[in-house]
Amino acid sequence: MPSEFDIIRQYFTSKESRADVVLGIGDDAAILNVPEHHELIQSVDTLVAGIHFPGETSPEDIAYKALAVNLSDMAAMGADPAWFTLAITLPNDDEVWLKAFSESLSLLAQQYNVQLIGGDTTHGSLSITITINGFVPVGKALTRNKAQVNDKVYVSGTIGDAALALAAWQGQCLLRDDSVSYLNKRLNCPTAQIELGLFLREYASSCIDISDGLIADLQHITESSHVGAKIDFEKIPLSKEFCSNLTDEALVVPLVLSGGDDYELCFTIVADKHVEFENALKVREFNATCIGEIESLNGVRCFLNNQEIEIQATGYQHFDDEFKG
Amino acid sequence: MPSEFDIIRQYFTSKESRADVVLGIGDDAAILNVPEHHELIQSVDTLVAGIHFPGETSPEDIAYKALAVNLSDMAAMGADPAWFTLAITLPNDDEVWLKAFSESLSLLAQQYNVQLIGGDTTHGSLSITITINGFVPVGKALTRNKAQVNDKVYVSGTIGDAALALAAWQGQCLLRDDSVSYLNKRLNCPTAQIELGLFLREYASSCIDISDGLIADLQHITESSHVGAKIDFEKIPLSKEFCSNLTDEALVVPLVLSGGDDYELCFTIVADKHVEFENALKVREFNATCIGEIESLNGVRCFLNNQEIEIQATGYQHFDDEFKG
Repeated sequence: MPSEFDIIRQYFTSKESRADVVLGIGDDAAILNVPEHHELIQSVDTLVAGIHFPGETSPEDIAYKALAVNLSDMAAMGADPAWFTLAITLPNDDEVWLKAFSESLSLLAQQYNVQLIGGDTTHGSLSITITINGFVPVGKALTRNKAQVNDKVYVSGTIGDAALALAAWQGQCLLRDDSVSYLNKRLNCPTAQIELGLFLREYASSCIDISDGLIADLQHITESSHVGAKIDFEKIPLSKEFCSNLTDEALVVPLVLSGGDDYELCFTIVADKHVEFENALKVREFNATCIGEIESLNGVRCFLNNQEIEIQATGYQHFDDEFKG
Repeated sequence: MPSEFDIIRQYFTSKESRADVVLGIGDDAAILNVPEHHELIQSVDTLVAGIHFPGETSPEDIAYKALAVNLSDMAAMGADPAWFTLAITLPNDDEVWLKAFSESLSLLAQQYNVQLIGGDTTHGSLSITITINGFVPVGKALTRNKAQVNDKVYVSGTIGDAALALAAWQGQCLLRDDSVSYLNKRLNCPTAQIELGLFLREYASSCIDISDGLIADLQHITESSHVGAKIDFEKIPLSKEFCSNLTDEALVVPLVLSGGDDYELCFTIVADKHVEFENALKVREFNATCIGEIESLNGVRCFLNNQEIEIQATGYQHFDDEFKG
């Protein structure tokens, strides 16, 4: 007896299977092979309509973001992503929505060579929970707890774009026509920095992805590592789209320091590997910028024009709290 | 800055860690070791308030059932459960509720030696998604697709208890005072048949857990295995509590055949292992009953007084659909 959700099954089971998936969708559980000499890396993230994305977000963007934020956790660990389970709660059985959702999810999954290996669809308010799995060679995972005094602090890409798009969506500012598309894409379709994460295995002493805000996430590193950090606001890389929309420091500073959702990586490089790392960065053409360094004084301090910025909100304090392993 | 959910973190991170958990809660992902020569078994199940349990169910029972139904998937695969992630969406930050929920979850987790290795708490309508992980020696997982003609069909425990409790809760019948407690426990706190699942690795040709109803779940086996099955209604084991409440065949038959939520195992034993299996069952003191056999004719047929029962509803056709891997 076909159900309204056979459409999802159909989209996902028609794809080719990874060689390490012994049995995928269709039994009580999946049967999987973790490669020898590798550790399994696993994480879960839920997106709830109205909390993590506006209710009117397209099914394509919801699917993209739901998987991308999970892939981003794999990037932050230096893991090679492999499989995921999907639990989706839906208010109704809108086949057009489901088709668009599943096609977008499938496309992104193919792009990263990750396979859906189990799922559960339930009836209720829209929310999507993905548990993602990846691998690292034993002992090579990037964690938050090994930053050391004098390490350099880096971020990938540019910071604040997603927060600016969210602020505009919330009616706090207007965006120039020529940057709306770029900025909304940064909010709705973040790019998981998987390749950078794999590269960082050889260099970084700690790593996290920026989901809660630069300061809040860097604080996760400093607290886990029992150190502090000092960063220069002027060194934080901003996109030309961000800069062309915002020049007022009073607006720029909180978006850059406390806005989340960029899903760039924030990581630390041991001081004596710094030059080697900078050279390797150029060869591999990764986009990463040194914004400060780890110090012994606890907490994260940020300087602008040689003055310490008083940091009001360290990350958006929403109701949610990830207590991710 | 402590959040209302630190209470969950506190309850779960204070427990001892399994040796195969390299890094648990507190980073972007967990780091885990799958034992050599074993496959990873993974499954996801969501419980939504008002769909999978009445809104007034106690937090203790919700937590118990959320983990138990996932453990049951491990039992159905013959897997040894190890770790789980928890994604919980909550309407508010009721600490008393959270404490009761997390303590109950923790107790059951300890009982089965499974460890929470990641989580995400979000704000919205109450729902709980657990992704569970377990192991089997390579090639030893129990699946749905290897039942063969002449195999014997078995069920563990007794069937229909949970469906009777649900029917009473829905006002369809009244329960005798002396069986209310037993029957509600069968509905709210199902026992995952982990030990039986491990034992069945050496004997069963196929296995499933009974969540949708005996006929519906046996049909999953027969369809996956491209066979059929014939069962005798009189052989289906019923509890004395079930029998003392219901004697009217018109009520008994649909509850036993189509009621779900028992989380007993339904499995098949190859004909020539049948006697050996029966002897081993007695030694190990597992409670399992032969109710019929696999035949070549497709579909599942059930006989009562030598007459084929017309099976109206093959499992409760709710909105939900597990497309589990």
